[in-house]
Amino acid sequence: MAEGEIDRLTQLLARLPGLGPRSARRAVLQLLKRREALLLPIAQALLAAAETIKTCSTCGNFDSTDPCALCRDPTRDEGLICVVGDVADLWALERSGAVRGRYHVLNGTLSALEGRGPEQIGLDRLLARAREPGRRELVLALPATVEGQTTAHYIAERLAGSGLAVTRLAQGVPVGGDLDYLDDGTLMAAMKTRRPAI
Amino acid sequence: MAEGEIDRLTQLLARLPGLGPRSARRAVLQLLKRREALLLPIAQALLAAAETIKTCSTCGNFDSTDPCALCRDPTRDEGLICVVGDVADLWALERSGAVRGRYHVLNGTLSALEGRGPEQIGLDRLLARAREPGRRELVLALPATVEGQTTAHYIAERLAGSGLAVTRLAQGVPVGGDLDYLDDGTLMAAMKTRRPAI
Repeated sequence: MAEGEIDRLTQLLARLPGLGPRSARRAVLQLLKRREALLLPIAQALLAAAETIKTCSTCGNFDSTDPCALCRDPTRDEGLICVVGDVADLWALERSGAVRGRYHVLNGTLSALEGRGPEQIGLDRLLARAREPGRRELVLALPATVEGQTTAHYIAERLAGSGLAVTRLAQGVPVGGDLDYLDDGTLMAAMKTRRPAI
Repeated sequence: MAEGEIDRLTQLLARLPGLGPRSARRAVLQLLKRREALLLPIAQALLAAAETIKTCSTCGNFDSTDPCALCRDPTRDEGLICVVGDVADLWALERSGAVRGRYHVLNGTLSALEGRGPEQIGLDRLLARAREPGRRELVLALPATVEGQTTAHYIAERLAGSGLAVTRLAQGVPVGGDLDYLDDGTLMAAMKTRRPAI
């Protein structure tokens, strides 16, 4: 039966997204069975990550260098900044290859309920960066939630008259998406912003 | 974008049961965001587990002591040994409170295909333990697979004439189970071993 260390490890792993108490227990068993191949390498990789991974002071990405590899890449378009609400979204966009400019990770989205104002999510840093010379466009890739859209609206208002184009990702039918499974809001948005078919 | 340490940690975590590449990436982000509350405690708990958790040399359970707490518990019935194919099954039975005897964890089940014979799964240790004086019954709680049932049959044959009762868990409808969702094999077994209703 589980005792001290096993219980403690199970409870900690259960706090990871995607692992509940039951799958955390299965993970602990797997770790104990494969100490050399799994448990010790994971422990060491965690300690290495804790030591080497920093938050990029320019864009907010996680990387082993500061500024991060994306901010140091001289081939990327300085004119365009893509604004996201979470590092996970930055990684998703980067995997897609859709963005060849810079990024900026906000610390979440504005939320009166959860007490996140412009200061808490680091909007001043973004606005200062957006107003640097050579900037052309700010693409707001914020979540398609009420809070995400409020944040997008707030940013667009603060930059009105700055000469910067402030855009946001298109809403519509996902590529390969089945209309039958889509929510009404998405279908409504896709209909409203329909484009010529040729 | 992910670099060395982040990639390595993601790949290692993706090898845990219940985590795929995508959920491993989400877990890594969560870990990096909550270094003090999550990342370092998990790294430390892993190292502590690697150092303190042993395999019980009597029954095969994982515990911080050898013999394990279950083997040391003087209140448990020495006459009954419950045989499982995996520590996870021992923990499940122990949570249920169904077993008040001892356990024995085999190293999996017999499998000609995967080259696991009686030696590989540690059957000699079990048979020796079963033949110790004072034993009364061996409950085979092996998986309800062909391999599990082959293993159960093999053990029962090897202990024929030893005077030990060799039993196995009943098969049937799970408590709270919906007949409509059950497989034919289970329904067949439940029908065949039906009992008086009063």
